[in-house]
Amino acid sequence: MRPDRLKDPSLRNATIKHVAELAGVSLKTVSRVINHEASVHERTREKVQRAIDTLGYRPDPSARSLRSTRARLLGLVYDNPNAHYIISMQRGVLSVCRESGYGLQIHPCDASSPKLAEELCALVQHSRLAGLVLAPPMSEQPELIKTLADAGIAFMRIISARSDPQDGYPCVYVDDRDAAYAITEHLIQLGHQRIGFLWGGREHRSSGERYQGYEDALKDYGITLDRKLIVAGDYSFDDGFRGARKLLALKDRPTAIFGSNDEIAAGVLAAAHSGGISVPWELSITGFEDSPFSKQSWPALTTARQATEEIGRHAARRLISGLEHDAHGEPVDPVNHGFSPELVVRGSTGPLRSAPKKRTR
Amino acid sequence: MRPDRLKDPSLRNATIKHVAELAGVSLKTVSRVINHEASVHERTREKVQRAIDTLGYRPDPSARSLRSTRARLLGLVYDNPNAHYIISMQRGVLSVCRESGYGLQIHPCDASSPKLAEELCALVQHSRLAGLVLAPPMSEQPELIKTLADAGIAFMRIISARSDPQDGYPCVYVDDRDAAYAITEHLIQLGHQRIGFLWGGREHRSSGERYQGYEDALKDYGITLDRKLIVAGDYSFDDGFRGARKLLALKDRPTAIFGSNDEIAAGVLAAAHSGGISVPWELSITGFEDSPFSKQSWPALTTARQATEEIGRHAARRLISGLEHDAHGEPVDPVNHGFSPELVVRGSTGPLRSAPKKRTR
Repeated sequence: MRPDRLKDPSLRNATIKHVAELAGVSLKTVSRVINHEASVHERTREKVQRAIDTLGYRPDPSARSLRSTRARLLGLVYDNPNAHYIISMQRGVLSVCRESGYGLQIHPCDASSPKLAEELCALVQHSRLAGLVLAPPMSEQPELIKTLADAGIAFMRIISARSDPQDGYPCVYVDDRDAAYAITEHLIQLGHQRIGFLWGGREHRSSGERYQGYEDALKDYGITLDRKLIVAGDYSFDDGFRGARKLLALKDRPTAIFGSNDEIAAGVLAAAHSGGISVPWELSITGFEDSPFSKQSWPALTTARQATEEIGRHAARRLISGLEHDAHGEPVDPVNHGFSPELVVRGSTGPLRSAPKKRTR
Repeated sequence: MRPDRLKDPSLRNATIKHVAELAGVSLKTVSRVINHEASVHERTREKVQRAIDTLGYRPDPSARSLRSTRARLLGLVYDNPNAHYIISMQRGVLSVCRESGYGLQIHPCDASSPKLAEELCALVQHSRLAGLVLAPPMSEQPELIKTLADAGIAFMRIISARSDPQDGYPCVYVDDRDAAYAITEHLIQLGHQRIGFLWGGREHRSSGERYQGYEDALKDYGITLDRKLIVAGDYSFDDGFRGARKLLALKDRPTAIFGSNDEIAAGVLAAAHSGGISVPWELSITGFEDSPFSKQSWPALTTARQATEEIGRHAARRLISGLEHDAHGEPVDPVNHGFSPELVVRGSTGPLRSAPKKRTR
């Protein structure tokens, strides 16, 4: 419903739900009245029409047409250079789509594009998508989310948050902060005090959450934060390499580096190797994600295991269940579920400055 | 057209193209006559009908309905555990889809499933796909390809082959053998004679082609093939690790190992690290693909650069152009294009048994 169509500003936000509540009927019944379906009793029809008039509610024709012509097809929207993350997410979403007879259309996009909302509305309309699964960072843009909701597009967000944001839109949230705290605590307990931190892209809420976990742990253990040990960057190998070179060139260099994801940590590992710094004897390194690289590198990376496939599955399951409930006029489960990544300790972290018993040749 | 519907076996293969040729009209005109469209001149209609009768041509109703109701949506069909390969392929196919106003539905599947043909036909029908891009190994299953063609499904195969197979079905072919030859030659020129070879999955034609390139190079350089240096396996890290352990335990162990892809080579590298064997001083390692891992590992891997994204782009471009030509009754470009991966030399290969000037600490 476009606000400019309403004469009384106090009723700007009247939705089909308000109409249903006021009339004391289900959403489906309101929808039947709006669509002039024959199956509605005359008395019910009048009751709904009165509620519509009272609230000044007007259905958005574009939203209605979007919903009525949709195919059994979901869209997965992402902007992420991390192949492993995307493939795991696709796998999770797809497995549920198949169980439910849905197809999956993929839509990588540019999260910084000013025309993103337009692009996604056109995508839904053009491909008759039933709904969207939104990965970070698109899922974390409030303006975009509001526009999609106003256009009547069904979606499920995957976001980084400590707890349910309770902002009225459905999501699956991942507690990055807690896992980052556990990683930092692990390093502190090994004896490290000078711990470098390499940021991921700031457009991802997860970067800030991971940084916050790092800062909280230092604080709790009484370690003073040294700003020189914190480097900005993106979730990429190159920025990990560059950031590590910067930190390792410091006079009082860190004894451990926390890379905000495994790609960054891979860059740190390469910087250490190329500088002749042995890991973990002279430098401990941690990542975040539990990617294949983290298991296959030498040494293997200490990291946080993110259940990306399971998160994708959960998001798709809730989205589809919402679509089916909606189609039957039933209320949708409003409870948002959270996931917590878990610390995985491998060979890239060790006690501070202990000498190896036997050198690797 | 199902053969069992024809009385005269000699005309079993009559297609809409034969009808168009015999009648001297376009495919679109034949299609209009078959579909009883009003816009056809009576004289043309009679001419086409005569050709249809002469050839005993009968349109397959399921094929017709598949084509007439299709959406502007392609399907990408793959069965591959390699996240980087799949993401690159998706990126290439998608970039062309977008230019042409098509969406992309992804369909990972089990290439060994006996019901695969059925599954793909159902997918096309259910999602009204305009056509399929088939990645290996599905693209290399002749039975499956014939079934899809008989069902009137438009597709483009990506296959491993030295040259155009000229089997009547469209494809993009990748000359794996040539690149594998170049890798083996590079090792031989560094002085290696005992070169181990780790196979990828035999359901992929590329495995056999890469092996053939290895064998051809040894032969051309007069090196006797030692069967003990050849190990079967899959395109996976684990099989690379296991295969390398086996080879490195030999009394007369190889001085170089050719892993059939970068995942396998990553496993070889891990086996070398864990056995205290320094790379490349005591062992040279090569992969195949030019994955991110190959650039990020220590040392970085010598490999063959596969233009996966460009291959995906080319496949999608030809498929869509075929669909558009077909819709206008024009003949489709029958020329199949080939790609050749290129040798990329990095730190994981070196001259035989030369001592390092300075040990990496």
